[in-house]
Amino acid sequence: LTLAYDGTAYRGWQVQSGAPTIQGLLTDLARRLFGADARLTGASRTDAGVHALRQTASLTAAIGLPLSAIRAALNDRLPADIRVLEAEEAQPGFNARRAALGKRYAYLIDDGPVANPLLRHHAWHVKWRLDVGAMRQALGVCLGIHDFSAFCAAPGRGQPAVCTVRALHVLRRRERVAVLVSADRYLHHMARNLVGSAVAVGRGARDPAWLGTVLASRDRRLAGPTAPAHGLTLVRVLYPR
Amino acid sequence: LTLAYDGTAYRGWQVQSGAPTIQGLLTDLARRLFGADARLTGASRTDAGVHALRQTASLTAAIGLPLSAIRAALNDRLPADIRVLEAEEAQPGFNARRAALGKRYAYLIDDGPVANPLLRHHAWHVKWRLDVGAMRQALGVCLGIHDFSAFCAAPGRGQPAVCTVRALHVLRRRERVAVLVSADRYLHHMARNLVGSAVAVGRGARDPAWLGTVLASRDRRLAGPTAPAHGLTLVRVLYPR
Repeated sequence: LTLAYDGTAYRGWQVQSGAPTIQGLLTDLARRLFGADARLTGASRTDAGVHALRQTASLTAAIGLPLSAIRAALNDRLPADIRVLEAEEAQPGFNARRAALGKRYAYLIDDGPVANPLLRHHAWHVKWRLDVGAMRQALGVCLGIHDFSAFCAAPGRGQPAVCTVRALHVLRRRERVAVLVSADRYLHHMARNLVGSAVAVGRGARDPAWLGTVLASRDRRLAGPTAPAHGLTLVRVLYPR
Repeated sequence: LTLAYDGTAYRGWQVQSGAPTIQGLLTDLARRLFGADARLTGASRTDAGVHALRQTASLTAAIGLPLSAIRAALNDRLPADIRVLEAEEAQPGFNARRAALGKRYAYLIDDGPVANPLLRHHAWHVKWRLDVGAMRQALGVCLGIHDFSAFCAAPGRGQPAVCTVRALHVLRRRERVAVLVSADRYLHHMARNLVGSAVAVGRGARDPAWLGTVLASRDRRLAGPTAPAHGLTLVRVLYPR
C-alpha cells in the first residue's frame, strides 16, 4: 500500500495500546475487512505528528478482492487524514521495511516574523531569519557514508550507526525553508537532529564548520536541539527496480 | 492590521451571534485590550471555511501602545489559526473596505485520483483530471469590465454587477491546479462560481466557449456549481500607492 497522511492527530505510525496510531487504525480496519490474520508493516515508523506524502506498507492477508476494490474499501472507511494512494500486489515474502533501499524526508521551516497559521501543523516556526547558504554549507559534510551517532536520540543500542546520506538540499521560497534529506537508513530522530543543528548554524549561533566537528565527535550532547516533529514529512520510500 | 488565518474552524469573517467568526473573535479581543469602543472593519467578508494569507482590517480604538506592542498583544491572545502579521498606523478615517482598490484570491484544486490528506482543508478535491488549457481559454473571456450577474449567488439586490477582472491565471503543478483571480470587486460567491464553471470546462462537461455564453447571459442558472469554500484563500488586498 502507498499511503499519505496528516500525522497531526496521531501518536505516530507504530501501534500503541490506548493511543491512536496510523498502523493501529489501518490494522484494525484491515482485520475487519480481510480477516483477523491481516498484518501491516510500514517502511518508516514515523513519530507522533510526522506526516507522509508516500509511506509504503506491506499488507499480508487472504484478500478475495481486486486491487482497485482494496483501495476503495479502505478509503471509504478511513478518516480523511489518512488515504491509500495505491494498492499493488507484491512478491511473496515482500516486507516494506526490509526491502527499502532508502527514504526521502522533507523538513519545512517557517522563518517569517509571525508564524503562518496555514502552516502551523506542517512547519516549524522559528523566530530567526535563517542563512540558507550557511545551512547548506554546514550540512554538506554529512553527504556520504558516516557514523551518525551524534545525531541519534538513543545511540549505541546495538544498532549500527553508519548511514549513507545520498542528498541534502536546503531551499528557500520567501519565508519558507525546506531541508530535503535522502539516506539509505535513519537513526532515531536523525532527520530532526540534523535539522535542529542546521538551524543552529542558519541563525548564526554556530558557524558552518561546527557541524562537521559534531559529526566527527559521534557525541549526541554536542549536536543542536531536536527539531519538532510536525515539520517533518516522509516524502518517499525507495525500492529496487 | 494585516491578518492571516486558517478559516477551517470559523463561520467566516463577519460577526454572527452564537457562531465563531474571525471578526467576532478579534473584536472581542480588541475591546478587552483597548476599550469597549474598539471597532474592526475587514476588506473582505470571507465565507465560512475560506482562508486568508493577507486580509486587511482597520481597527479604530484609543490605543496607548506602540504599534509593535499592538501586534504582540493580539498574537499572544489569539488562537494559533489567526495571526496579526502587521500593525500600521492609518490616515484618520481610513476604512479597509472602502479604501481597497481590489483583491486577489487563489483557489486550489486537487485533481489527483485520491485526495491528498495534507490538503483536505485547503483544496477542493475533484475526481476528474482537469484540462488546464481549456480552463484558461474559458476564463479568458472574463478579463476586463463585465456584468458578472451570472456568477453572483444573489444577483439584483441593488448592488451594481459590473466588475473589472484584471488577471486570471490557471496553473498546474503535478496534481494541484491553482486558479488566481484579481479584480476590483467581487459579487457574492463570484470567485467560487467562476471556479465551479471553469471546472465544468476543465473536466470536459462543457466546451471553453460556453463560459462566454454564460457571462453574456447574466443568468446565474446557466453557470456551473459553486466551488466549495475551503479551496479559496484571500491572497492580498490592494490599496493606492
